[in-house]
Amino acid sequence: MTRDALLTDRYELAMLLGYLRAGMAGRRATCELFVRRLPASRPFLVTAGLERIVKKLLDLRFHDDEIEWLASQPALAAAFTPEARRYLRELRFRGDLWAMPEGTVAFPDEPLLRVEAALPEAQLVETLLLSIVNHDARVATKAARVALAAGARPCFEFGARRTHEEAAVDAARAAYVGGFAGTSNEEAGRRWGVPVSGTCAHMWVLSFAEEGEEASFRAYAEAFPGGTTLLVDTYDTLRGVERAVAAAGPALGGVRLDSGDLAALSVGARARLDAAGLGHAKVVASGDLNEYKIRALDARGAKIDVFGVGTDVVATPDAPALGAVYKLVEVESASGAPRPVAKRSEGKATWPGAKQVFRTRRGGRFAGDEVALASERREGAEPLLVKWIEGGKPARALPALAAVREHAMAEVAALPEELKAIAERYENSYPVRISPALRELAEHAWAEKVEVMS
Amino acid sequence: MTRDALLTDRYELAMLLGYLRAGMAGRRATCELFVRRLPASRPFLVTAGLERIVKKLLDLRFHDDEIEWLASQPALAAAFTPEARRYLRELRFRGDLWAMPEGTVAFPDEPLLRVEAALPEAQLVETLLLSIVNHDARVATKAARVALAAGARPCFEFGARRTHEEAAVDAARAAYVGGFAGTSNEEAGRRWGVPVSGTCAHMWVLSFAEEGEEASFRAYAEAFPGGTTLLVDTYDTLRGVERAVAAAGPALGGVRLDSGDLAALSVGARARLDAAGLGHAKVVASGDLNEYKIRALDARGAKIDVFGVGTDVVATPDAPALGAVYKLVEVESASGAPRPVAKRSEGKATWPGAKQVFRTRRGGRFAGDEVALASERREGAEPLLVKWIEGGKPARALPALAAVREHAMAEVAALPEELKAIAERYENSYPVRISPALRELAEHAWAEKVEVMS
Repeated sequence: MTRDALLTDRYELAMLLGYLRAGMAGRRATCELFVRRLPASRPFLVTAGLERIVKKLLDLRFHDDEIEWLASQPALAAAFTPEARRYLRELRFRGDLWAMPEGTVAFPDEPLLRVEAALPEAQLVETLLLSIVNHDARVATKAARVALAAGARPCFEFGARRTHEEAAVDAARAAYVGGFAGTSNEEAGRRWGVPVSGTCAHMWVLSFAEEGEEASFRAYAEAFPGGTTLLVDTYDTLRGVERAVAAAGPALGGVRLDSGDLAALSVGARARLDAAGLGHAKVVASGDLNEYKIRALDARGAKIDVFGVGTDVVATPDAPALGAVYKLVEVESASGAPRPVAKRSEGKATWPGAKQVFRTRRGGRFAGDEVALASERREGAEPLLVKWIEGGKPARALPALAAVREHAMAEVAALPEELKAIAERYENSYPVRISPALRELAEHAWAEKVEVMS
Repeated sequence: MTRDALLTDRYELAMLLGYLRAGMAGRRATCELFVRRLPASRPFLVTAGLERIVKKLLDLRFHDDEIEWLASQPALAAAFTPEARRYLRELRFRGDLWAMPEGTVAFPDEPLLRVEAALPEAQLVETLLLSIVNHDARVATKAARVALAAGARPCFEFGARRTHEEAAVDAARAAYVGGFAGTSNEEAGRRWGVPVSGTCAHMWVLSFAEEGEEASFRAYAEAFPGGTTLLVDTYDTLRGVERAVAAAGPALGGVRLDSGDLAALSVGARARLDAAGLGHAKVVASGDLNEYKIRALDARGAKIDVFGVGTDVVATPDAPALGAVYKLVEVESASGAPRPVAKRSEGKATWPGAKQVFRTRRGGRFAGDEVALASERREGAEPLLVKWIEGGKPARALPALAAVREHAMAEVAALPEELKAIAERYENSYPVRISPALRELAEHAWAEKVEVMS
């Protein structure tokens, strides 16, 4: 049983009730979700969260206790008529959802998804859709950058403890979409099928306070004989490596370094593992890693086979919030005609009308995008937005998560090289043009606004 | 039905199974949760999340499908014996929980909570406890800073769309604990009783594309006649104020500004409201606000009565992750004797032994803290950690959320003035001393480690 209807802002509910009261509940509205700009360190966006969105829209409903709670709110009381109560009880998402397939790479001004629905439905889902995209795409994009830095070496998401416990589950999923190999998060494995793996923690070693580090390693290797990865930095890291070798022998799958000078320690660990004939054993590194630090470790000759990334992929400190917005672009007028609309606020103006994004490739690589009206067609360019829900029913099957991840990795691979380089800011941005027809509509819509205002 | 047991890292489960296999499941362990250091812009921490922790610990259990999922994992198979399965099915949190009351102000090195339980239980809950504290205290602390900047003017949390949809609910709760007046998040109202309020959005105004802004205001004021707050910046902000006055008249509760030069626009809005005899109508401002911007707006003479704060309070961009850790500090040895333990990793060393925090006040203000052994006593100082769960049962009643908020606000008020000033870094930190007995134990514990290692 999903409980998503109240995962929203008060004003969405207030406006919904207001539309009912104003007799506008039957008007058709089109809203689009997009980012106006990206953080300086993000030359592209990996979209994520679509499966979550589709499932939540298909399941959307108000439960009785939720309706009673809303009914108890004095600020809503004036508009909370018996008709409103019935409307909420019967409310389902009966509109259409268009979106870029999950894992598609996107850029500013491009609608990532489009909702076409009755005005109250289109309004109600705003907050939830933004929460999902702003969270999941933020994490997937960071993961893609970390994975670019790591190249062929697998990255695992270890960040559950640095974010809200439920956000952690979806962060693990998003990191996997972005190209990570797996997560330490058990629930992400159960709920989403993300591969789960883990090593051991300092607490294990410390629990054998009397018996000592080597005894702790031996006990762990006995419990998990198939390729144990042991955490070696509780006391002295390189002596820890030697003890891991002594305790697990050829069954040692790897050692994990979680503190100190990872470049120097990884070289020392590698040498000790090789000297013991354990060339197959991996050196796993963790501890506040990100794409910049992985590059720096490589530059210093670190010998690391696997990266564990926590805080940086879930909290994305270099770009801690994504600013996706959800805007009305067209609404049925009283006469029944669809009317493109736009907002003129300073620095927050929007493009009116239902839109499509056309992507052109050259030699397999992305060569440029065009944001056009949904009614336009472009020979030889790929329309990125496709229909996922039609009239409240599934319009196409959701791809498996592993396929989403492969799609995302292929998308990132097809980016221009300069956008795949790891930098804190980028000289050039990916070319996104606005179609002439859209520009014309915008002039028209904005001019209309001025009239309305005068 | 809570589903929290898998909101954890794989290694917690693996170690739990390992303790069972090593015959250590009955050993008593003590773990403490604390921060080693705080971000430069955080001279204090407002603890938050305790009610969530207590409820989750009291409800902790593995459901059958969760156990089956774990049983399906090849990496755990070797240790997943029938006894282990039975253990998981019967597992409850049967230990003790000590913690600072929610909303207490805390500092680095101070245990915020202490778990005393069987080793596998103490291990299992690590990730979940860290997720909750790292999220909730991060948000509550930021909220406290924003509320300090706002002074008597209320702040509302508007950030649901900038964070994961479930994190948003608990962020709203944490912001309220930190001193916010309420939230826009409906579910935070239903679930936690946080006061909910909202205004209206640009989409409302744009939906009346044909009818115009003033008609949209009139319709909203009719739907919600009791003190409507109208968003006035969709087209031209100050003309929007005039239209709001014309549409709602004396029923106008306020206007919201969400873009542009908030200082200048608030002065213009105030003047227009006053000229219309609407001295009671509030000027509400939102749009990427935080404690620094509120100070800057005040310095420019802004006339703002209410602040809406979104991204900054949920994503806390100036300190996007809190680094609280959870460490084993004492464990029963094979002989049954409790043994203090510590970790020596570079830059990550810990203080051994079960601890208490004693706070001294002078003239009502906090004068200094001492981290001591739990067995120590200090005349005239307040011990901050109290028992919430004993043997898996509630040991005291949880305070109501409004009381938690009052406690937090009183705590912040009792801070030294220089820590309440809004700055990006602080010259002096709050004095926290380590008791001589704890220092002596640490020397002893560390010396033991060196022996074990040699």
